[in-house]
Amino acid sequence: MPDKKGLLIVHTGDGKGKSTAAFGMLLRAWGRGMKVCVIQFIKSETGKWGEVKAAQKMGVEWLTTGDGFTWLSKDMDETAARAMHGWKLAQEKISGGNYDLILLDEFTYPLHYGWLNMAEVLDWLTANRPPSLHLVITGRYAPEALIQAADLVTEMKLVKHPYQRGIKAQAGIEF
Amino acid sequence: MPDKKGLLIVHTGDGKGKSTAAFGMLLRAWGRGMKVCVIQFIKSETGKWGEVKAAQKMGVEWLTTGDGFTWLSKDMDETAARAMHGWKLAQEKISGGNYDLILLDEFTYPLHYGWLNMAEVLDWLTANRPPSLHLVITGRYAPEALIQAADLVTEMKLVKHPYQRGIKAQAGIEF
Repeated sequence: MPDKKGLLIVHTGDGKGKSTAAFGMLLRAWGRGMKVCVIQFIKSETGKWGEVKAAQKMGVEWLTTGDGFTWLSKDMDETAARAMHGWKLAQEKISGGNYDLILLDEFTYPLHYGWLNMAEVLDWLTANRPPSLHLVITGRYAPEALIQAADLVTEMKLVKHPYQRGIKAQAGIEF
Repeated sequence: MPDKKGLLIVHTGDGKGKSTAAFGMLLRAWGRGMKVCVIQFIKSETGKWGEVKAAQKMGVEWLTTGDGFTWLSKDMDETAARAMHGWKLAQEKISGGNYDLILLDEFTYPLHYGWLNMAEVLDWLTANRPPSLHLVITGRYAPEALIQAADLVTEMKLVKHPYQRGIKAQAGIEF
């Protein structure tokens, strides 16, 4: 078997670290001079996140396509439309063949909420994903079909969270 | 309560992403201009890891103190001695007060194997850790006392691994 094979990687579960571990992979790949790109679904385009600031410093392409977390959304049609737009962008980046690793951050939500059809997305990926491209997908509620299709799946499980102790989210750690 | 509080964070479990999520936190903190430092236990000092290359490019201080994974070690005394040396280094960095975030990567192993005394380590941290310092500890087999003391604990649970499909570890993804 060939040594270089693009992996379909999924980070899911209710714990912290799904996106964060994907950012760590990005760091690792970037360290090796690989070409990386991030398309961030759901999260709003504030540009204030620590990871976005880091990407700017690193020269990593980072596209945000969301309008905020779904559970805060006032206009779900808007959120869904943005997710579909994000997927179009992702399709361009994936099929273009210019990257070694693409991260679709929080991409499970459009799938989970049915804004995108899981079977169609997987069919499209099978037909269009370059064989050496690593594709990383994060978010809660990863559909079973995605887990079946993936090469590497990790569930991040919440054991203890500082909110439970009344400690606020910390800049540089959680965002 | 104050907004800024150093968190004691633990990533444990048998899944991928423990160190990787810590590297993602590092990225985030570095993106915000925070001062970060890594002390890597157990892993050998090859300097070839993608994360080490990234740290060099980012100008992040990265200290390796190990001689390889424990399950490959031929000389356990050597491995234990290096771990204790790593802890001395960590103590200097922690008590020095010059950092916003310190990552003790794979630090659970010296604790798990008893090369370091868990209670003594926790007592020392209680007495010497600056209150605003985020301390991130990764590795399997996090001792229960460490989980009790931590603010944020995530268990990375293996759901599916490419080894199970006969696919080799991929540069830029797993190392």
